[in-house]
Amino acid sequence: MKSKVTEHLTQVKIFIGEVVSLVSTKNIVPHLHSVTKELRSERKKQQPCVLWFTGLSGSGKSTISSAVELKLYQRGHHTYLLDGDNVRHGINKDLAFSDEDRIENIRRIGELAKLFTDAGIIVLTAFISPFRADRRLVRQLFGDGEFIEVHMDTPLDECERRDSKGLYKKARAGEIKSFTGIDSNYELPEAAEITVKTAELGIEACADQIIDYLIANQLIGAARV
Amino acid sequence: MKSKVTEHLTQVKIFIGEVVSLVSTKNIVPHLHSVTKELRSERKKQQPCVLWFTGLSGSGKSTISSAVELKLYQRGHHTYLLDGDNVRHGINKDLAFSDEDRIENIRRIGELAKLFTDAGIIVLTAFISPFRADRRLVRQLFGDGEFIEVHMDTPLDECERRDSKGLYKKARAGEIKSFTGIDSNYELPEAAEITVKTAELGIEACADQIIDYLIANQLIGAARV
Repeated sequence: MKSKVTEHLTQVKIFIGEVVSLVSTKNIVPHLHSVTKELRSERKKQQPCVLWFTGLSGSGKSTISSAVELKLYQRGHHTYLLDGDNVRHGINKDLAFSDEDRIENIRRIGELAKLFTDAGIIVLTAFISPFRADRRLVRQLFGDGEFIEVHMDTPLDECERRDSKGLYKKARAGEIKSFTGIDSNYELPEAAEITVKTAELGIEACADQIIDYLIANQLIGAARV
Repeated sequence: MKSKVTEHLTQVKIFIGEVVSLVSTKNIVPHLHSVTKELRSERKKQQPCVLWFTGLSGSGKSTISSAVELKLYQRGHHTYLLDGDNVRHGINKDLAFSDEDRIENIRRIGELAKLFTDAGIIVLTAFISPFRADRRLVRQLFGDGEFIEVHMDTPLDECERRDSKGLYKKARAGEIKSFTGIDSNYELPEAAEITVKTAELGIEACADQIIDYLIANQLIGAARV
């Protein structure tokens, strides 16, 4: 690992030398991203990847992703969680809830996740993301093994029973239109990397299932870093 | 520092206890971002902030920001550089070059930078960002001292002489319209935190000027971490 870093730094130094030479002789200023994804992930002892949580409202995406993030932090890893709170009111605040805007919402979240993995970070995203085509498009942004679809496989009746935000009640009353699971379809993942049964397991066990996946796939080590 | 971390982790544990209790008694699943900006920046021994490079095409934004990023990496810091390469072709690829789209481009870059600082990272952005109003809007997204405007104060004739991408030549020939400095205005920063004279100083000295600012303002320490 270390020799790769040294090698890269040598290349960067050569490049900077070339830049200085070009600037002084030809006034040409090229550039490159000197600090790469590989350098960052080596230093962090983690493989950047995205844990893409998908599932109905109330299926446990936010709760479980937060629990996983905390566990990763405690193990010494660097993560970032993208969810409605920090995305919908910020970078995507120009988007509404039309079909077109929903697709654009997911596209941008995919690009965001990509930038964060490029920064060496393990990204968690918590969005319903109900359509296969959208999830497939996002998956295509990533390299092999980097995109991990985490299906929160919680039955609709359980989600509706929880109804933590009172949204199902509103949807049933017709106050919210195009609500996933009620009058808009949730397309089940065909081959999610991880399927989490939140109605059968507690929060801790669900989070551990995801941590175990990361360890088994050598995205993080088994020990604290 | 450590006691703040311990205190926060205690709060998180209490919160998780509450979640478990709520889920089992009332089926309510609230959530919070368990790993905060403060926790991340304490672990990293750096204050997340954004170095917002602004200046004409050819003024040295990419070259100097890359050099600064490399220096920060070598000092043990975690950075990310946003520029045309990773933003324009990705998250902002739906945008063209109309006035409206240029404003939206800068707005989203500001929001992106905010997410990265929230993740504990020192962000560098390298975009012409010619308009004061846009830069002011971005500044308002950040807390005191977090937004550092870095003005690449390179005279137009020097930028045009470098013309590393051949863009000035095309703009003068009328092949590119609304080119900043030629037929579109660059509004000089009124109170940039850092003003860099690339026509007078070499790359190393320019980069060191910015590193010195970060140290003087206690955003990073004077020693390697």
